[in-house]
Amino acid sequence: MKKILLGMVAFAVMLPAIVEWTSGQSNVAWATEQKTEEIPPPDLYKDTPAWYQAVYKDNVGLSEGSGPFTKYFKAQMLDMYWQPNRHYEPMENLDHSIFIEQERRDLCVICHEEATPGIVADWRSSGHKHPKSTPYLSSKTAQIEKNVGRVLDEVHCFDCHADTEKNQIRMPTGEVCGGCHRQQFDEFLREREVGRPNHLQSWEANTIVPWYAEAARRGYLYGQHGCDMCHSGAEKCDVCHTRHKFSAVEGRQPEACMTCHMGPDHPDAESYGESKHGKIYEKEEEHYDFTKPLVEVRPGEDYRTPTCQYCHMYEKHGRFIHNPVMKGIWRMGTVPPSNLEYTSSLKDYPYGIKIIADKIDIYSEENVAKRSYWLEVCAKCHSDRFADTYLKSLDQFMFQAHTLADQAQKIVEDLIADGLLYPDAANRDPYPLSDGIVKELSADFLGEPVYNAFKTLQGKFPVVGPILGVYGMFLQMQDNPSDIENMYNRLWFWYKLQGYKGTAHAQQDVSWWWGQAPMMMEMTRIQAEAARLRRLAGIEKTISK
Amino acid sequence: MKKILLGMVAFAVMLPAIVEWTSGQSNVAWATEQKTEEIPPPDLYKDTPAWYQAVYKDNVGLSEGSGPFTKYFKAQMLDMYWQPNRHYEPMENLDHSIFIEQERRDLCVICHEEATPGIVADWRSSGHKHPKSTPYLSSKTAQIEKNVGRVLDEVHCFDCHADTEKNQIRMPTGEVCGGCHRQQFDEFLREREVGRPNHLQSWEANTIVPWYAEAARRGYLYGQHGCDMCHSGAEKCDVCHTRHKFSAVEGRQPEACMTCHMGPDHPDAESYGESKHGKIYEKEEEHYDFTKPLVEVRPGEDYRTPTCQYCHMYEKHGRFIHNPVMKGIWRMGTVPPSNLEYTSSLKDYPYGIKIIADKIDIYSEENVAKRSYWLEVCAKCHSDRFADTYLKSLDQFMFQAHTLADQAQKIVEDLIADGLLYPDAANRDPYPLSDGIVKELSADFLGEPVYNAFKTLQGKFPVVGPILGVYGMFLQMQDNPSDIENMYNRLWFWYKLQGYKGTAHAQQDVSWWWGQAPMMMEMTRIQAEAARLRRLAGIEKTISK
Amino acid sequence: MKKILLGMVAFAVMLPAIVEWTSGQSNVAWATEQKTEEIPPPDLYKDTPAWYQAVYKDNVGLSEGSGPFTKYFKAQMLDMYWQPNRHYEPMENLDHSIFIEQERRDLCVICHEEATPGIVADWRSSGHKHPKSTPYLSSKTAQIEKNVGRVLDEVHCFDCHADTEKNQIRMPTGEVCGGCHRQQFDEFLREREVGRPNHLQSWEANTIVPWYAEAARRGYLYGQHGCDMCHSGAEKCDVCHTRHKFSAVEGRQPEACMTCHMGPDHPDAESYGESKHGKIYEKEEEHYDFTKPLVEVRPGEDYRTPTCQYCHMYEKHGRFIHNPVMKGIWRMGTVPPSNLEYTSSLKDYPYGIKIIADKIDIYSEENVAKRSYWLEVCAKCHSDRFADTYLKSLDQFMFQAHTLADQAQKIVEDLIADGLLYPDAANRDPYPLSDGIVKELSADFLGEPVYNAFKTLQGKFPVVGPILGVYGMFLQMQDNPSDIENMYNRLWFWYKLQGYKGTAHAQQDVSWWWGQAPMMMEMTRIQAEAARLRRLAGIEKTISK
Repeated sequence: MKKILLGMVAFAVMLPAIVEWTSGQSNVAWATEQKTEEIPPPDLYKDTPAWYQAVYKDNVGLSEGSGPFTKYFKAQMLDMYWQPNRHYEPMENLDHSIFIEQERRDLCVICHEEATPGIVADWRSSGHKHPKSTPYLSSKTAQIEKNVGRVLDEVHCFDCHADTEKNQIRMPTGEVCGGCHRQQFDEFLREREVGRPNHLQSWEANTIVPWYAEAARRGYLYGQHGCDMCHSGAEKCDVCHTRHKFSAVEGRQPEACMTCHMGPDHPDAESYGESKHGKIYEKEEEHYDFTKPLVEVRPGEDYRTPTCQYCHMYEKHGRFIHNPVMKGIWRMGTVPPSNLEYTSSLKDYPYGIKIIADKIDIYSEENVAKRSYWLEVCAKCHSDRFADTYLKSLDQFMFQAHTLADQAQKIVEDLIADGLLYPDAANRDPYPLSDGIVKELSADFLGEPVYNAFKTLQGKFPVVGPILGVYGMFLQMQDNPSDIENMYNRLWFWYKLQGYKGTAHAQQDVSWWWGQAPMMMEMTRIQAEAARLRRLAGIEKTISK
Repeated sequence: MKKILLGMVAFAVMLPAIVEWTSGQSNVAWATEQKTEEIPPPDLYKDTPAWYQAVYKDNVGLSEGSGPFTKYFKAQMLDMYWQPNRHYEPMENLDHSIFIEQERRDLCVICHEEATPGIVADWRSSGHKHPKSTPYLSSKTAQIEKNVGRVLDEVHCFDCHADTEKNQIRMPTGEVCGGCHRQQFDEFLREREVGRPNHLQSWEANTIVPWYAEAARRGYLYGQHGCDMCHSGAEKCDVCHTRHKFSAVEGRQPEACMTCHMGPDHPDAESYGESKHGKIYEKEEEHYDFTKPLVEVRPGEDYRTPTCQYCHMYEKHGRFIHNPVMKGIWRMGTVPPSNLEYTSSLKDYPYGIKIIADKIDIYSEENVAKRSYWLEVCAKCHSDRFADTYLKSLDQFMFQAHTLADQAQKIVEDLIADGLLYPDAANRDPYPLSDGIVKELSADFLGEPVYNAFKTLQGKFPVVGPILGVYGMFLQMQDNPSDIENMYNRLWFWYKLQGYKGTAHAQQDVSWWWGQAPMMMEMTRIQAEAARLRRLAGIEKTISK
Repeated sequence: MKKILLGMVAFAVMLPAIVEWTSGQSNVAWATEQKTEEIPPPDLYKDTPAWYQAVYKDNVGLSEGSGPFTKYFKAQMLDMYWQPNRHYEPMENLDHSIFIEQERRDLCVICHEEATPGIVADWRSSGHKHPKSTPYLSSKTAQIEKNVGRVLDEVHCFDCHADTEKNQIRMPTGEVCGGCHRQQFDEFLREREVGRPNHLQSWEANTIVPWYAEAARRGYLYGQHGCDMCHSGAEKCDVCHTRHKFSAVEGRQPEACMTCHMGPDHPDAESYGESKHGKIYEKEEEHYDFTKPLVEVRPGEDYRTPTCQYCHMYEKHGRFIHNPVMKGIWRMGTVPPSNLEYTSSLKDYPYGIKIIADKIDIYSEENVAKRSYWLEVCAKCHSDRFADTYLKSLDQFMFQAHTLADQAQKIVEDLIADGLLYPDAANRDPYPLSDGIVKELSADFLGEPVYNAFKTLQGKFPVVGPILGVYGMFLQMQDNPSDIENMYNRLWFWYKLQGYKGTAHAQQDVSWWWGQAPMMMEMTRIQAEAARLRRLAGIEKTISK
């Protein structure tokens, strides 16, 4: 208890710094507090302020949560495994310290061949067990040996799992992997350069949203599955290179992405999988040569159609990079473009929290450059003009989808302006974690008007539209959100994103039937519910006379 | 007609026995009427009372249905094939009796090579055609030869399809297969030990629900596809080992389960298929060795990840069993746990029919033991603590999901208590087959209060929540159910079960986006509809003054 | 501008002809204007009137659209590639004319090996590059050589892409392919014999519906993805035989169909894919021999279960045909059968536009014959009686589904008759492109009453049910459609079609959970919304007294 209180005090002290840092983040300028040495050890939280590391990286076991609202909820049991840097606690019933002290490498395999034979078998067939079994592996291993300054004839359980400082077992994170695989680690860290959303900051995205903490506080512990299993992606490399094979070949295959990249918010598995690209891959995958590094893949010969990795990890000018977010233009598809006129409050985009990009300028210099890199990769098979035409048609899709969303938002906002939400905001639960928001976040982070609204109204006001309005798909409280607010959430979030990815990945059925058509049909419902609410209010007005 | 009348009389006579038996079933004690001989022939309905066999097993062709409501509807044409014991009628246009009398084995193949070449080819490549083609098959065949007391150099069409007693063609059921494959048959029969739901009693589950008979009575014959194609699983082994190859190798593969185990009520195919387990299987399946019996499979070597069969057919202490239901704890996910406090009528769980488990005690001695067997199988690859943590997190998911369902049920029940269903129960169709329910079922089976309600109100009352309330997803009658009742059905049945299996199979997107998030959004709709109904009633009250 | 005006005049001149032709089309008699020569060149628009070719085939680049409403919207950029006959415009930034004039075949490969290496590699591994690499290919090539009168040692970029008349690059359409592959082309053209829907006329189906043009006119350009990507299928053979391999082997595999044949309107991929047929194919596909022409495939040996192509391209009496629509009975499942009594306006089926079949007589002589051809193909593996029983059970499914739809339509129509749509038709947007409909279509095409309604009411009336009522799933305008109209659209279109294909392809879960159950639950919503609207109107009536 003392520890928690202390944590709370520490947190309070950090608050001004959080505010400063998070509001600064929207600029590309990444604040650095510490100068880097020659080759400092790999650090997932490199160049983040110390206070920030205190709420994300510093180990607290299960005593509290992660992120700005860390004191409002305890971490959940599984988070030990999802986010070990912050939440891992050593096993109590089996003390491995003596094995570590004595470096009993032999015992790992002897015991675990009995205890958990599957992972031992996995390791036995891995590049870690046989780092020089092929000329290609040998050359990679030679490089690593040079970097780390020792001979590597076998990478052993002990090398990754033994924390020899603390004499205890550790769950390896990316920093352990990065000790040898530094290039991959460093390239992955470059995700921060292009801003959110990205993999590296997905744990932040997870824990910074007020509804996550509010749900946990209310005893809805589903977050440990639905949220944390994907959003812990940054910390551990085994999301793509599954343990205990940790294979580059596996990571190059589309299926490596799919367990997370599916569903309403990014139906990448579905849209790629059902596209001509995906179907041809499905049919001919035994002819795809995944042993080759991406840069050596010959289109049409080694791959008949592209994979997720081939397009998204292509950086530019023939180079590939070990992270797939560098060329993103529309990004996740949630942020409205600055290239449209809006009729709703999207004009000012009040609920677009500052840590995600402000409105996207599709034609910014940066985005025009990114587009040219996309064209480079499309041109492996398609004519420049076709590729350019297709990318423009994606823009058209997104522009009309955002315009439709704007019209829907206007309907909802007009209702609110006329006082017709039912029950009204005063008579329902406030916005999630409203008490925490005003304490832990700042006017800079939320924008002055929104911050003041939270402060003045204690969260008792409707929050509609990207980004903060999406809470209603994650947490239903007493009459909050109301029916029409969630209809709109489905329109601009769920269905728009289906249409986006269906179109982007050239899967017409996903684009249309899972995207645009449901948007249209949700618009039907929104118009009907608005008419119904106005009608009811009219009746009540008449009879109250 | 006479035959049917006779059947009806016979049925009436049996009623007390049905009541006794079905109400007895909820206890593990399985009533036996007949003492077994040394090795009696395989019998799918072993140890069930004679009256029971009379409504399920005894052949009536297509003249009437199956089960307690057998006289309310005729069997549908396809049921000849789905449930041959009860419903098969020999072909009239082609008399095979002479071939059977003369045991013309040669003619089967000669004719069917022309008539239905596909299945002949299938058989030619099967273990039945070549029962000694490998050392492994030879040893299995030797065992069977010993058991059946004759040499088996070929298992022939005639052996399974010729009913030499009646001199007619038969559709083989499990009992025919069990003649040779007795161990598998007997192990399968053990499904009854752990109660419903299970495969063995799926035909009963199908035909015992009043809405199935009501739909058929109203001319909705969709049941022969949607219900019967899955629920006839018990009787015929070719559901998993498809004809005419009847391959053990096929039955060991996850796809064998998937044509039934998908969809809202048990999205096993989707959740396993999109999980890391499933995706790795999908990618590496050509390296999975399905020729090995499960007990010989080396995790990590023969299978890199587990299959449906590997986890679910693991019994305990290193043993596997030829049925997958022995370790079930939460079972289908519909029955509320006894470990929670409820605010709605789930407290008393009035509509939980007695043939399915009463509330589940997750921490019962039996369930604690089952959990330890799960841990045994997880530990093939995962640490004990991780596995235990994960299973506990599944419990947490289920507890909060049932709590949310309870809150939703309370909203609906409060509406009903306030007389606000619209149209009210008096002015809409009664509960399905209400006339039959009071005639064919008993107070013991339904519980005294529910039985009396059916009797007194002739089904004109709202039935909400597990299990009987689910009718509204299967049959819409005049204004019954109403909108809000079906919203709740989707919440506690469809979405909760998606969340359950997504979580159980470690597929986060299914857990969240197909499960928990839609539960939350359905809660939005329920609250909104309740508010709407109250508002409308308020208006009407005002103007009626 | 002049050109467009001219086009409009030309169009106006054509109108009477359109009317005549489109109304004539519902009869099988296909009007021919021109007598065919000995072997005329392949012509996708063979036997269509000249005016018709003027709105579909004649190249207008991007200056206007296609079809009857061609002047109401411009073609969208991508249509250059989807529908090149009508919309392709040569590249401006790279003039290929000099290469074509000089027939510089060498340069194609030299440049494109750099520019677009993927497609060059594809071509290098194709039958076009090596038309005599196998005995089978050699014999096919010999036939073609005979037909075209020249030696074919290599089919080269130049042969398909060089338009030597215009000295410019062309996008090849089916007519280019048909120059050599005439049998396939001619068989494909026979799709017209059995009427719509078919592949050959899918571009017409796309552009003839008023909501397509209305959406484009309103700036919703999603049609270029959702509609055009599938509906351009007729013109280009690479939809099934993907470029630049153009492989028959690929076209014989189920995946070739799936990128279009999925989703609400025809969930063929899902229902076949999850059926036993599909799952066995998925598991054993490496043993399926796709190098064989369909007619040589031995069921059970070369394919253990059938593919899309095997069943649907089986014509009759052992013959296969290069188009899959010849045996269709229920077709797309949208047109009501003439074999039922209806309570709603389906009696007269007013909104069934004449170019699609009038009500289907399931027992017509033609359909009875088609059924016998289905039985021929089923009997490769199944008994006649089983196959016949199954097909009849499909009819039962469809009959009850159409009956349910009729009941739902009656509810909506009764509401309309009582003046209870809200807002009513007078106070909302009219039917899509109502202004264009009366100008470009005729009383013959629409039926006299509907035509007059459009003319008199300017589209300000409710249009409910098949076929024209489906607009609400494609375009939401101001309060049009209303909530209940779209509920009904989902019932008769989306869910009925899921149930249809689930049943037809023997996938019980799709039949039930994606089809029949949602139909039932949508019926709940329809009844509830009807009750709600009546209740509100009652209240308003009371208080207005």
